[in-house]
Amino acid sequence: MTTAKRDTYTPETLLSVAVQVFNERGYDGTSMEHLSKAAGISKSSIYHHVAGKEELLQRAVSRALDGLFAVLEETGAVRGRAVERVEYVTRRTVEVLVAELPYVTLLLRVRGNTRTERWALERRREFDHQVAELLKAAAADGDLRADVDIRLATRLLFGMVNSLVEWYRPHPGTTADQLADAVVHMALDGLRTVRG
Amino acid sequence: MTTAKRDTYTPETLLSVAVQVFNERGYDGTSMEHLSKAAGISKSSIYHHVAGKEELLQRAVSRALDGLFAVLEETGAVRGRAVERVEYVTRRTVEVLVAELPYVTLLLRVRGNTRTERWALERRREFDHQVAELLKAAAADGDLRADVDIRLATRLLFGMVNSLVEWYRPHPGTTADQLADAVVHMALDGLRTVRG
Repeated sequence: MTTAKRDTYTPETLLSVAVQVFNERGYDGTSMEHLSKAAGISKSSIYHHVAGKEELLQRAVSRALDGLFAVLEETGAVRGRAVERVEYVTRRTVEVLVAELPYVTLLLRVRGNTRTERWALERRREFDHQVAELLKAAAADGDLRADVDIRLATRLLFGMVNSLVEWYRPHPGTTADQLADAVVHMALDGLRTVRG
Repeated sequence: MTTAKRDTYTPETLLSVAVQVFNERGYDGTSMEHLSKAAGISKSSIYHHVAGKEELLQRAVSRALDGLFAVLEETGAVRGRAVERVEYVTRRTVEVLVAELPYVTLLLRVRGNTRTERWALERRREFDHQVAELLKAAAADGDLRADVDIRLATRLLFGMVNSLVEWYRPHPGTTADQLADAVVHMALDGLRTVRG
């Protein structure tokens, strides 16, 4: 027999349970009942913290988006040659993915069935757009190879980076740094113009 | 009022309808009822062609897997320097993804809840493993940069290639060839040792 846990959750800790359930069952497939079971508290206790599952989704994807957009404000992303800023943003994006893995995983699986999901997709597109603009600037400087279409390169870069959420699991063997190095080496050293 | 279509399906054309429904609703979320509605024929007509939805899944992912494994038997994949074979396999994999887009999309979304799904995951891992072996051989030849772990490089390469199913839609602007070029340029020219 299981007894319901006393509700010692904060909105923050409840969120981390919810995100895990969303990632396992999909957002659409998750009911308040599932969340209540996973948290070990009653549905009414959950409603004490949040208005419903869409609020949990909104908080979760906001955390991922805030992490990603914050990168674009960092000095390394706004100063210096565009190609160096591309490298900086790529590296920091990998670090945010690793640091906020369940939150970014959820963000990348959002489908667009609810208002919050559509908002999240819109914000993701805005982030991709800003990175694409950086790549364009680097290409205009002559620092990226001219034979790869920039929109295509941006999508492939995100394809590579975002794939981390599908296969990367934190373990002592591979640090965020090593991952970021590998991504930068593979994607950017391939894109960069080789100089005499 | 809609009238049921006369059953003019072959196993092949029924498959293409089923794959579309699987990709839209997820395999788990698809019932024989959904398939019957999408095909416009009765469930019993579908059972005339196949034993059930798992057989359709099996045929669909087999088509994707057969396409991918066939690449590994082609001359370009078995003869010549390992790094050239890596390039060949990368290029051909992109071409198979584009040619068999809905089938490979389904393959890459397989979760592992049924015997057929577990078998498909196992075959995917085998394919990834064979490509990883090629990359290892190229690294042993000194043709790939030594500062990127080969298993990591393989995952990032597949992350980039497989992301195509999420965003690539056939249109006159980008051919399979241009896509393959972009992937090879980005991933491999970054991996390849720059020679004096």
